[in-house]
Amino acid sequence: MSRPLAPGAPEVATDHPDAPQTDLSPIAGAVAEADAAGFVAVGDRFDDDLRYLSRFGGPDRAYAVVVTPDRAALTAPALFDEQAQREFVHGAPEDGLAREIRTARQGDPAGVRAAAALDDLASSAGSTVLTPASIPHDAALYLENAGYELESTTVVADARRQKTAAELDCLRRVQAVTCRGMARAEAVLAAAEPDGDDLLFEGDPLTTERLRREVEAEIARHGVRGAGNTVVGAGPTAADLHYTGVDHIAPGETVLLDISPRGPHGYYGDLTRTFAVDSDGGWERRAFVAVEQAHETALEHVEAGVTAGTVHEEAAAELTAHGFRIDSDEVGLTHGVGHGVGVSLHERPSLRAETPLEPGNVVTIEPGVYDPEIGGVRIEDLVAVTENGFERLASYPVRFTPVSPE
Amino acid sequence: MSRPLAPGAPEVATDHPDAPQTDLSPIAGAVAEADAAGFVAVGDRFDDDLRYLSRFGGPDRAYAVVVTPDRAALTAPALFDEQAQREFVHGAPEDGLAREIRTARQGDPAGVRAAAALDDLASSAGSTVLTPASIPHDAALYLENAGYELESTTVVADARRQKTAAELDCLRRVQAVTCRGMARAEAVLAAAEPDGDDLLFEGDPLTTERLRREVEAEIARHGVRGAGNTVVGAGPTAADLHYTGVDHIAPGETVLLDISPRGPHGYYGDLTRTFAVDSDGGWERRAFVAVEQAHETALEHVEAGVTAGTVHEEAAAELTAHGFRIDSDEVGLTHGVGHGVGVSLHERPSLRAETPLEPGNVVTIEPGVYDPEIGGVRIEDLVAVTENGFERLASYPVRFTPVSPE
Repeated sequence: MSRPLAPGAPEVATDHPDAPQTDLSPIAGAVAEADAAGFVAVGDRFDDDLRYLSRFGGPDRAYAVVVTPDRAALTAPALFDEQAQREFVHGAPEDGLAREIRTARQGDPAGVRAAAALDDLASSAGSTVLTPASIPHDAALYLENAGYELESTTVVADARRQKTAAELDCLRRVQAVTCRGMARAEAVLAAAEPDGDDLLFEGDPLTTERLRREVEAEIARHGVRGAGNTVVGAGPTAADLHYTGVDHIAPGETVLLDISPRGPHGYYGDLTRTFAVDSDGGWERRAFVAVEQAHETALEHVEAGVTAGTVHEEAAAELTAHGFRIDSDEVGLTHGVGHGVGVSLHERPSLRAETPLEPGNVVTIEPGVYDPEIGGVRIEDLVAVTENGFERLASYPVRFTPVSPE
Repeated sequence: MSRPLAPGAPEVATDHPDAPQTDLSPIAGAVAEADAAGFVAVGDRFDDDLRYLSRFGGPDRAYAVVVTPDRAALTAPALFDEQAQREFVHGAPEDGLAREIRTARQGDPAGVRAAAALDDLASSAGSTVLTPASIPHDAALYLENAGYELESTTVVADARRQKTAAELDCLRRVQAVTCRGMARAEAVLAAAEPDGDDLLFEGDPLTTERLRREVEAEIARHGVRGAGNTVVGAGPTAADLHYTGVDHIAPGETVLLDISPRGPHGYYGDLTRTFAVDSDGGWERRAFVAVEQAHETALEHVEAGVTAGTVHEEAAAELTAHGFRIDSDEVGLTHGVGHGVGVSLHERPSLRAETPLEPGNVVTIEPGVYDPEIGGVRIEDLVAVTENGFERLASYPVRFTPVSPE
């Protein structure tokens, strides 16, 4: 029982690739280089570093990943042992690290269990432990009480910048499903009919919430979840970057959909399009033309070696040339033109950074202009940086007037 | 374009209640009692304490909530100012605390911004700051460097145990939508036809993943999201408490669906039913009868004042009487019979705790028995504890053989 989609959405396979596995050798290498006893990360299933390091999907209380130069351990509740074996141990890559699940000391806090694991696994006499700076304070204190000295490291965030082929597969797949969500929203908009100040769809005034639900039901049918991130604004609420409320959609105003769902292995898609139904031009049309041009200009500059911030600057210059402001928090371009995407929706690199883009970076390209009195226009694609340019992870047409299903 | 549902699912309204607001006076009271400068929590949008304290939905980098005896502040990125005003300041309850959004010191770490807010807001000369034990370590160090001494507090977890009327409204609504997801799954199972070792649905072998997607699409249409928690197992995988893979469903085996989606304001539903299509009795039927009886027995003991652990013990005794083990990690009852639910899927109280149940506690009642060679049966409802018993937050029929839509 499929629902009509606007033309141009990619075909998607019905299954998802297997979960990618994480090469922990950069972490082990950092431990060896620092002559440290090990690396420790502590968090729950909602901590994206833990998700990346372990590929483990539960529980919602804290657990730990411990890495030494030649071994890696995950502390899990006994109830999760089978799942942890499946997700952390089996199918692990050939990074030379022996992996194990430790279910000992159930009931002890994660920091205590991490310290016990370190005591067992560390071959070095070093007392330094590398941790992310945001490790929970109680875990840090338990490690210090066990005689370890903490040193913060950015090795996980650094490793996450470079997507592997398996990670790119996950991102492509999620972005393709994201496009289908957009195609469902566009089909609804194309079918909506102006009726005074409203658009009617299936007899009712069309709202941002109805569009959001149509998108989320469509992507759920393909094994991807809304993740609470589907932003749909109309007219003035399209100028609110994080609008998730219920707003009636009027003819002519900008309808902005920013869809950033999460796939089964934790990778996000991110796609924004802006439409107007029955527009008579004006600010909406001028903004669309400017943003479409800024989007193309920004993409032309995406390439390994280019300073990330250049992409932002080029898009901003294009918007300025079209007469839009770039110096305000409220009007014109009010945000950065892009950010990294992976197991976090926002991660490195930012397109305002001074660092060069590298092959394997995955970033959004999303210029936009806003006027809180009128509306907002943003166009966003998700791209992987390559040696000579970029790969768009999935393609969706850029159209101002929504098009009906073929 | 609605899809067929099995009979017995509650009707649901198309909208959700407004977000509940949090009475911060218990936090402010703990500060006053400790003669502390204030309370500080730091986390991102995925931190449930921050969600509860602030009702603020973004961003995915750390921000802080600071509470003194008479004021409360949220540090937010300037880009989120409008959303923060809407969610944290407006519509706040009459708890006597002046609320404000602080967008000063953009770019500084959340711990630095929290220390600056404390310096401005604290009227007491006290240097103690109350924090949850798991505050990020870097934030703790910034506060200490600013001259504050940290003292951990459980005041947030304690406050979260007691649901307000507005929170109960959210939970009821999410649970009602959860029931509709179950009704969709049951309708699919009722329509599936045995074909050798498979069940055929719409011409294809029915899998756990297909059921999961049907459930998630149905709940998405009602503004609730799967949240990655929909567990569907069949036969042996029904004995795996956290199975989220793809498994063909065979005639006669137990099909266990544990649906725990998240509503728009962060509250979870939680509902489990177990079915078998074309069963000829055996272990599956005996397990179902035992679990259904244990579920009813457990519910009979839910009441304010009863020791939480008693509910677990009574269910376990019933399962023992039916010949199932309760002393193994693998066979029989392998887990606790229930846990608290709120803005976290698992929170206080546990039904293994020695503390008495209190009015306003919301807990699952979910006995189950498992045999990794055969299958698993679990029946779960979500209930609010009342003075004289309990309120089932939404009702769904308990049936072994799935029933077709009327």
